[in-house]
Amino acid sequence: MAPNGEAKRDDYPYRLAIPTRWMDNDMLGHVNNVVFYRYFEAIVVDFLTKEAKLDWLEDPHTCYAVESMCRFWKPLSYPETVEARLRIGHIGTSSVRYEVALFSEGNPGPAATGHFVHVFVDRRTERSLPIPAPIKQVFENFK
Amino acid sequence: MAPNGEAKRDDYPYRLAIPTRWMDNDMLGHVNNVVFYRYFEAIVVDFLTKEAKLDWLEDPHTCYAVESMCRFWKPLSYPETVEARLRIGHIGTSSVRYEVALFSEGNPGPAATGHFVHVFVDRRTERSLPIPAPIKQVFENFK
Amino acid sequence: MAPNGEAKRDDYPYRLAIPTRWMDNDMLGHVNNVVFYRYFEAIVVDFLTKEAKLDWLEDPHTCYAVESMCRFWKPLSYPETVEARLRIGHIGTSSVRYEVALFSEGNPGPAATGHFVHVFVDRRTERSLPIPAPIKQVFENFK
Amino acid sequence: MAPNGEAKRDDYPYRLAIPTRWMDNDMLGHVNNVVFYRYFEAIVVDFLTKEAKLDWLEDPHTCYAVESMCRFWKPLSYPETVEARLRIGHIGTSSVRYEVALFSEGNPGPAATGHFVHVFVDRRTERSLPIPAPIKQVFENFK
Repeated sequence: MAPNGEAKRDDYPYRLAIPTRWMDNDMLGHVNNVVFYRYFEAIVVDFLTKEAKLDWLEDPHTCYAVESMCRFWKPLSYPETVEARLRIGHIGTSSVRYEVALFSEGNPGPAATGHFVHVFVDRRTERSLPIPAPIKQVFENFK
Repeated sequence: MAPNGEAKRDDYPYRLAIPTRWMDNDMLGHVNNVVFYRYFEAIVVDFLTKEAKLDWLEDPHTCYAVESMCRFWKPLSYPETVEARLRIGHIGTSSVRYEVALFSEGNPGPAATGHFVHVFVDRRTERSLPIPAPIKQVFENFK
Repeated sequence: MAPNGEAKRDDYPYRLAIPTRWMDNDMLGHVNNVVFYRYFEAIVVDFLTKEAKLDWLEDPHTCYAVESMCRFWKPLSYPETVEARLRIGHIGTSSVRYEVALFSEGNPGPAATGHFVHVFVDRRTERSLPIPAPIKQVFENFK
Repeated sequence: MAPNGEAKRDDYPYRLAIPTRWMDNDMLGHVNNVVFYRYFEAIVVDFLTKEAKLDWLEDPHTCYAVESMCRFWKPLSYPETVEARLRIGHIGTSSVRYEVALFSEGNPGPAATGHFVHVFVDRRTERSLPIPAPIKQVFENFK
């Protein structure tokens, strides 16, 4: 499903509250567009750590970003707590696509929608490898 | 033209050298993927300021990000100086699409390719307005 | 009182919970020392906004940083929620000194202690002015 | 020597040019005070890497920050290239104090002065160890 401005919170089963920080705002008084990807990262890392039990420094496999994308629908601004939402899109042999949306407090429509694609690699050789089965199962659960 | 891994420096007429910073690297020892968008921002802002003579705090018009995207082909890492490159893609009535690529020192292929879309708005009303003619001409020159 | 490694949570009446972010960590796996000042900023800005009712973009007065300092006692690391604490130290005619400490979850001693000095200035002339009386009273309450 | 507003470029033998970035500025239009520490870090890391030949990920020893401090004399702002300067202050058995100043283009007086203290530790045990002799000699050369 393409990123879209009609997305609703319930379209995405996983959630994370992200308090904005003063320096997330730029000179124009809104959260800088690059920081939206920082919020995408926050929910993806949180999901992988808590649900998929990934150990970022010790596991034999790790994840590399291969693509990300964001559409900006409404501004966000410090101070507020952003509600990030995530669902799993396409699951490939080695890669997974997270579909992410950010919601402003009290606002039904998204401030941003986008995606992020990870490929699983062997930490030492940096070659792609199949998504480990227990992690793949977690991804299926959040489709 | 779609972002692609065969992009060459000469496909993009505008350039900016960006020294990486220590904290651009993440725990895995490479420039964090979100920071690639910081480099995209660097060349877009530099281009708009120097070539299109945009005054970010005083002009009656300003630019809002509506979409950005990045494909990650090869890692970047501190310390190195990244060569960012930019060309203008589609020019609409109110919007412009920058196509951007990042190159690692001594590497012919791109570390990343992507795009960034701005819409011009009235600073006070926040409604879209036509790209001012002198700026549109600059965009044409870098197509 | 000098920053010190024996500081306790109760020495500082104001508090703010700060969730760490993945990119707060540096390549060595701990929260980067510069980010500690980001946490100091978070509690100072939060305190000024909520308690002293400062409007950062509209008030005729604003605050300039004149000095800051941090001693690092123990590492912090993503993922954890840092407990920041603040009390008011010296109150001058135009300036105020915030004394700040950061605590790791479940740890009685501080991860860091330090201070931050603001001077109040006229937003337009940028010349120092006396701390507005209602704000001064708030500072007295948190001494 | 205490940080001071009369510091001159020539008081500090080591130098590094640091281009500011758009997001170094905060909502008030100047480089945010926390980012000054990012510039301090830039010159300290650059000095240790190039002059003291420190390998941050492979050496058996590494450096922990124990204290840092900054006095803010004049604002910095994007776009400009900051000239950072460094000299070695006190050299202890395990610790070293860097004295740092930041200068704005075309301005004889400093925008900021401060210091940063590192202690050398064994990477595995995290216990302090004497500064390796070749590094100590480099420090002596920049006193």
